[in-house]
Amino acid sequence: MEYRRCFEDAIARLKAERRYRVFAEIEGDARRFPHAVWHRGTHVLQNVVIWCSNDYLGMSTNSDVIEAMNNAAARHGVGAGGTRNISGTNHALVQLEAELADLHGKEAALVFTSGWISNLAAISTIADLLPNCLILSDELNHNSIIEGTKRSSSERKIWRHNDLAHLEELLVSEPRERAKLIVFESLYSMDGDIAPIGAICDLAEKYGAMTYVDEVHAVGLYGAHGGGIAERDGHMSRLDIIEGTLAKGFGTLGGYIAASKPVVDAVRSYASSFIFTTALPPAVAAAATEAVRIAKRRPDLRSALERQAWLTKHALSAAGLPVQSNSSHIVPVMVRDAALCRAASDMLLERHGIYVAAINYPTVARGTERLRITPTPRHTDAHIGDLVEALVDVWKTLGLSFAEPGEVGVLHAEGARCTYPDLKRAAE
Amino acid sequence: MEYRRCFEDAIARLKAERRYRVFAEIEGDARRFPHAVWHRGTHVLQNVVIWCSNDYLGMSTNSDVIEAMNNAAARHGVGAGGTRNISGTNHALVQLEAELADLHGKEAALVFTSGWISNLAAISTIADLLPNCLILSDELNHNSIIEGTKRSSSERKIWRHNDLAHLEELLVSEPRERAKLIVFESLYSMDGDIAPIGAICDLAEKYGAMTYVDEVHAVGLYGAHGGGIAERDGHMSRLDIIEGTLAKGFGTLGGYIAASKPVVDAVRSYASSFIFTTALPPAVAAAATEAVRIAKRRPDLRSALERQAWLTKHALSAAGLPVQSNSSHIVPVMVRDAALCRAASDMLLERHGIYVAAINYPTVARGTERLRITPTPRHTDAHIGDLVEALVDVWKTLGLSFAEPGEVGVLHAEGARCTYPDLKRAAE
Repeated sequence: MEYRRCFEDAIARLKAERRYRVFAEIEGDARRFPHAVWHRGTHVLQNVVIWCSNDYLGMSTNSDVIEAMNNAAARHGVGAGGTRNISGTNHALVQLEAELADLHGKEAALVFTSGWISNLAAISTIADLLPNCLILSDELNHNSIIEGTKRSSSERKIWRHNDLAHLEELLVSEPRERAKLIVFESLYSMDGDIAPIGAICDLAEKYGAMTYVDEVHAVGLYGAHGGGIAERDGHMSRLDIIEGTLAKGFGTLGGYIAASKPVVDAVRSYASSFIFTTALPPAVAAAATEAVRIAKRRPDLRSALERQAWLTKHALSAAGLPVQSNSSHIVPVMVRDAALCRAASDMLLERHGIYVAAINYPTVARGTERLRITPTPRHTDAHIGDLVEALVDVWKTLGLSFAEPGEVGVLHAEGARCTYPDLKRAAE
Repeated sequence: MEYRRCFEDAIARLKAERRYRVFAEIEGDARRFPHAVWHRGTHVLQNVVIWCSNDYLGMSTNSDVIEAMNNAAARHGVGAGGTRNISGTNHALVQLEAELADLHGKEAALVFTSGWISNLAAISTIADLLPNCLILSDELNHNSIIEGTKRSSSERKIWRHNDLAHLEELLVSEPRERAKLIVFESLYSMDGDIAPIGAICDLAEKYGAMTYVDEVHAVGLYGAHGGGIAERDGHMSRLDIIEGTLAKGFGTLGGYIAASKPVVDAVRSYASSFIFTTALPPAVAAAATEAVRIAKRRPDLRSALERQAWLTKHALSAAGLPVQSNSSHIVPVMVRDAALCRAASDMLLERHGIYVAAINYPTVARGTERLRITPTPRHTDAHIGDLVEALVDVWKTLGLSFAEPGEVGVLHAEGARCTYPDLKRAAE
């Protein structure tokens, strides 16, 4: 058996399909976020502006968050030293869980070392503890949700993306007394579209289903206190399990669920991927706690994100770039070809010092390759101007298709309509 | 469907079986490790000494490691901001991977956010990329390895624990050209016994199998540079994949594999649990890198661990406590009953301020419940004396069985025999 050859062939297949990924090596600058240094090659450094981070509020470089990490590291060390049951339950982590339960108005919360694991652990454990459970999963759910549903031994049905009629069709065909778990995301990260949470809750109540919502691209960013789309739309209390991340809007690392005490206690007690893994370090937990607290009291960060996302979308659209419409902070610019998408990303980085990763299969479906642009409150109007100029140059150089300026959608972090008359005038 | 009731019942079942776990809330003190504060209740604090941490070298509180985290946090922030492919590949993480590849003498390394995920991702991906692969897994492998083998679509056979004859029996019954992956641990954490790595490599070579070894309880602790049991025994270059953790001997968070470039590149490119998750923060990566560098140049830490583990085992054994023999730094003291094990742990904590978690099912088999004691270089001879006294008191109070003093095994961090005549004299 030529083992090495097998793995070389596997890599060669990716290269042949133009799916081989080369990671850009980035050195962020906390004081100058979103500016960073790109390690272009050994000893070749280039200044860049990051336009594809999921650190949506720039929270990873907030000075109070950094100070919280550093104080906790100095006082308690940099690691937890064990699983939650065997010396790993540090005080900072318990405080973080209390803060997260409060954020979502739930009885309890449980922290994992990643959002990926929180979905794997929680979905599989919850479904398997319910007798003969049927999982109803949105077809565009994230990989970690799919892995969670597959890890479960429960039956699984897929409903068409955000299609309430199809979801109801599946629900109505089951006995009311059968256990059902509806699993969906509040904000789908690649298209930036938002789920009809209220209507899904209506169906869940009508047909006696539990609801599990992944809010990872929304926590910190939407709602009066950053509780997510569910807070913004007034449905937090109707959802059974809210899953979130500490690694995007809250700028650190880890994932979590917030739910009733029995659900959280059951996942805590039965999920092997939770039981048999080292706890989050106190330094990371303290930083995350500070980030959640900041997000709760800083609606101005959400307003600033809303403004810069609006401006980015409208400025790109006004320049004829094919922005896909949505009502969130995500700005997808469509390329629809893997090799060209990679080439556009490379040219942006090398020629313009603008870093936007190419999003190709398997992250998105083939034929929907894109540049996924993520503004933050720290991207200035001047940054946006530079981005538009660079993208227009790349589009022209590569001969990519321009679009007619059109409706690109608006977002409403606080639930109130924001029209930005000053920006509208500027864009016109 | 009474959902809440289902989860309440699941918890009640654990309580009825005396398997319900209450996590001790601990606040470590970096300057006084292994001393810590136990949050006994709201506003009730008690000083304790931790005797069950997997921070085996006390590395989480090393001042250089803490400084590395704090400098990186101040310069680069507290989070990676994205997956490895989408802005998350920070420079500190690339440096860490180079350090780990060097530690194990391999072409490349890949870091994950936990050891649990590194096993899930690597084992399933490697096996699935090999045509018609047969996984041969030791029966006492860790939960994360089992999950990795189950996540794979490959056939799986279990060999009896550390039983070379059984492993050979399974190997010989397969065609030589069939792909085979032998998966085992170098040091089994609950019993502290060590695998015959050289003999397993002999069989792998004889029958044309790949080898995957989990060294999480050994990296940093054994071998001239802390490369693990495989380094100590001179077999690192014979192993195809070495999996390790940053969360035990290296005191931080995360897991990794070290292997050939094609294997690492294939896991990097195909493992969804790696692709779709946020990268380790630069602050954590920088701390881990510093910890690995310290471990490489500090054999004195390993000697100190060896000495304190030897002393702990012999002092406990001399006092008639039922220490299970092994040749590692792990000190299992057998109770063999879940309720009594929990009671012993509680009494140690409440009455003596000594924290040793009870190890019950499912972490160990029923009937083998134990206190798992983990000395570190920072536990003094006086700490050991206090531990012996406290355990003897608990054993007498609860009426647990004492044993005849016997052979408890010795460990050899550097491969040289250490007899500690000074300690032997003291113990006699």
